[in-house]
Amino acid sequence: MTMPTAERAAVSARADTGIPAIPAGVAGHRPRVVILGAGFGGLNAAVALRGAAAEVTVIDRRNHHLFQPLLYQVATAALSPADIAAPIRGILSRQANTAVVLGTVTAIDVVGRAVAIGERRVAYDQLIVATGAREAYFGHDEWAETTLGLKTVEDATAMRRRILLAFERAEDGADEAERRRLLTFVIVGGGPTGVELAGALAELARAALARDFRHIDPKTARIVLIEAGPRLLPAFPPSLSAAAARALTRIGVETRCGVAVTACDAAGVMVGDERIDSRTVIWAAGVAASPAAQWLGVAAGRDGRVAVNTDLSLPVHPEIFVIGDTARVAGPHGPLPGVAPVAKQQGAYVARVVAARLAGRPAPPPFRYRDYGNLATIGRREAVVDFGWLRLTGRLAWLVWGSAHIYFLIGFRNRIAVALDWLWSYLTYQRGARLITGSDL
Amino acid sequence: MTMPTAERAAVSARADTGIPAIPAGVAGHRPRVVILGAGFGGLNAAVALRGAAAEVTVIDRRNHHLFQPLLYQVATAALSPADIAAPIRGILSRQANTAVVLGTVTAIDVVGRAVAIGERRVAYDQLIVATGAREAYFGHDEWAETTLGLKTVEDATAMRRRILLAFERAEDGADEAERRRLLTFVIVGGGPTGVELAGALAELARAALARDFRHIDPKTARIVLIEAGPRLLPAFPPSLSAAAARALTRIGVETRCGVAVTACDAAGVMVGDERIDSRTVIWAAGVAASPAAQWLGVAAGRDGRVAVNTDLSLPVHPEIFVIGDTARVAGPHGPLPGVAPVAKQQGAYVARVVAARLAGRPAPPPFRYRDYGNLATIGRREAVVDFGWLRLTGRLAWLVWGSAHIYFLIGFRNRIAVALDWLWSYLTYQRGARLITGSDL
Repeated sequence: MTMPTAERAAVSARADTGIPAIPAGVAGHRPRVVILGAGFGGLNAAVALRGAAAEVTVIDRRNHHLFQPLLYQVATAALSPADIAAPIRGILSRQANTAVVLGTVTAIDVVGRAVAIGERRVAYDQLIVATGAREAYFGHDEWAETTLGLKTVEDATAMRRRILLAFERAEDGADEAERRRLLTFVIVGGGPTGVELAGALAELARAALARDFRHIDPKTARIVLIEAGPRLLPAFPPSLSAAAARALTRIGVETRCGVAVTACDAAGVMVGDERIDSRTVIWAAGVAASPAAQWLGVAAGRDGRVAVNTDLSLPVHPEIFVIGDTARVAGPHGPLPGVAPVAKQQGAYVARVVAARLAGRPAPPPFRYRDYGNLATIGRREAVVDFGWLRLTGRLAWLVWGSAHIYFLIGFRNRIAVALDWLWSYLTYQRGARLITGSDL
Repeated sequence: MTMPTAERAAVSARADTGIPAIPAGVAGHRPRVVILGAGFGGLNAAVALRGAAAEVTVIDRRNHHLFQPLLYQVATAALSPADIAAPIRGILSRQANTAVVLGTVTAIDVVGRAVAIGERRVAYDQLIVATGAREAYFGHDEWAETTLGLKTVEDATAMRRRILLAFERAEDGADEAERRRLLTFVIVGGGPTGVELAGALAELARAALARDFRHIDPKTARIVLIEAGPRLLPAFPPSLSAAAARALTRIGVETRCGVAVTACDAAGVMVGDERIDSRTVIWAAGVAASPAAQWLGVAAGRDGRVAVNTDLSLPVHPEIFVIGDTARVAGPHGPLPGVAPVAKQQGAYVARVVAARLAGRPAPPPFRYRDYGNLATIGRREAVVDFGWLRLTGRLAWLVWGSAHIYFLIGFRNRIAVALDWLWSYLTYQRGARLITGSDL
């Protein structure tokens, strides 16, 4: 699609490339496979290329792989960033055919087959783009300034700071109206992140902080979860959405479904016709793909996702693959969702395609996503699990949720650390990482 | 001493106090004890006043108590900040007579008996000043810009970022001279912090990072520890200083004693006549007291420490106590050092003095420091321990060091977390918190 655009972008990208190329891999003559992004997709592709007769280079702007599904627990002071992050170099250190580059991709020269990191170029023969997604504000980019997102470690520690400081400032003797604004937390978006954040915030306020203040009662904090669609957790069956809503109500979260946020500022949000005053508005409503489509000079939908062939390569550039949140891939019920299992399976799949090409073997059959189910937790002893053939709620679902998340964490140390933090929090109702750090103290 | 200065400061402080007072404690009529700083001194004073018939208010600009003796392990990626920090409110939450205020003290009105936090005033009847120390650069404050200090969580994560980024940039294909600068780490100051940092850095480079790069060999990193005095660890007996120096040499740290740093810039230091090129210069050479003397309008020595009576109160203001790194207290071998045990004992002592005053009991005998000994670790299975009656080196000293630090950590969770992180690092030679975070990525 959009061949002329692609060609134009490629040519213009080529024009400014009088920059010395740097070696993409370790040796110097084997096929060069470059992977952009070490999230779930890119990292799984890299690991699956362990034995390939290729020089693999993984480029990421961060030095760590982040287990984003638990990032909300960093934001609510339950876990430390290092518990859910692992250094990319460490994960890949024993893969002799793989090098790791810390850098931010600024352009892709699809004709010259090289990735630019500022002034540097990394040449490729096969390219895997797995650069993920970022927050989307439905045409209101200015909302980014007054709401809090949750994509990086810094986002999570900033959110933790803002949440904990709201209680501190309320304690400080603000007037009654300001105190209510400070003790009102609005979460926009009723998907898994929004639901899990709402539950964790409710527990933080009603248990961990309950006895710690003298002028306010943290238990009176108001937590409002807003979902524009008709129900929470739209990816789950309606019965589990209803169970999640009931569980949230039980722990004191107000849920509003079927109303959209129409305005956001530093003192609150408009939800339909209602104004909710709040100093802490969290944005968990939508994501758009990373700007890979621009780099590649191909068209993308409004969500920024790039359309790909059934083997996840680009129509005009079969040597380029796009996977994970950055790719639009048809599934049985519409496009595949931007979740970790999709990215991981796609990463492993493109590694098989690349390995087959390098070995001159026939291509594997088209990519097919195996949906093993959906999980979300609401808080202490509460979760919803949908395996298709089995639906669970309550304590058993919560144990399944916890076990699955620990199982999928990378690294033995992180698994132990998270398991013990959870055990400790479960027994004591406390939070292990109640730190206010950073500059805007 | 310097009565006129004190009076002048007090009057000028009073002149601008047309600000509403806020209640210092919970009830409203019992004697008000205000504690500035929740480090080792202030926190121990607060805990010891648990049963006192007083309203106790603890003011700190951070929401957490920090176990500074292990901060170097955060800076070298071994521990997470939350492992060595505990929320002050959480520690004191069950003390009904105690309130916690998050705020930065801007002035003390010694005549009006109130502490100013910006526009707010907190009135006191008894004041305990325990505001600690900060880095001192011996008249070269500009060195603060190019060297890295280690006092706060942010200092530690910034140092971790700089250290890990130095390896990343060296890997990036810098020229050979720049690569050497990036792989040279200079630590100024051979006290416990400097020695422990040097050992931890050597282990980071030679073990945890050893296999992770493709273009550089982290094992070739040069670590130089500079001490202006004649030997490392001047507070220890010479035989243990020598043992520490030997242990550092064994793990590849260069030590230079008896030479002073005469210049510092972004590309290295001058040590006597020698230039050492380095992109990472760590400052562990000296501290000065917090500006409490200025706030109180009393004279202080060059180190900023305030002279106090034998009961740790101020000569002109017996209702004000100064403790910890901020006070100059004579010991058997010169002024007491700025270490945690001194601050803790002083905190507990002034709480006894205050309690006696409130109860109308006679004052306790003058403060006397009980020195239980000194500990410092050099790295894996290496430490020096001086109990006076017993001196240890090697593996046994290391076990004593580790046990003592876990014992003194506040909070069961932190003890378990640190113990497990250490066990994991010991078994795997890895570091659990290798995150590059923050803005100057």
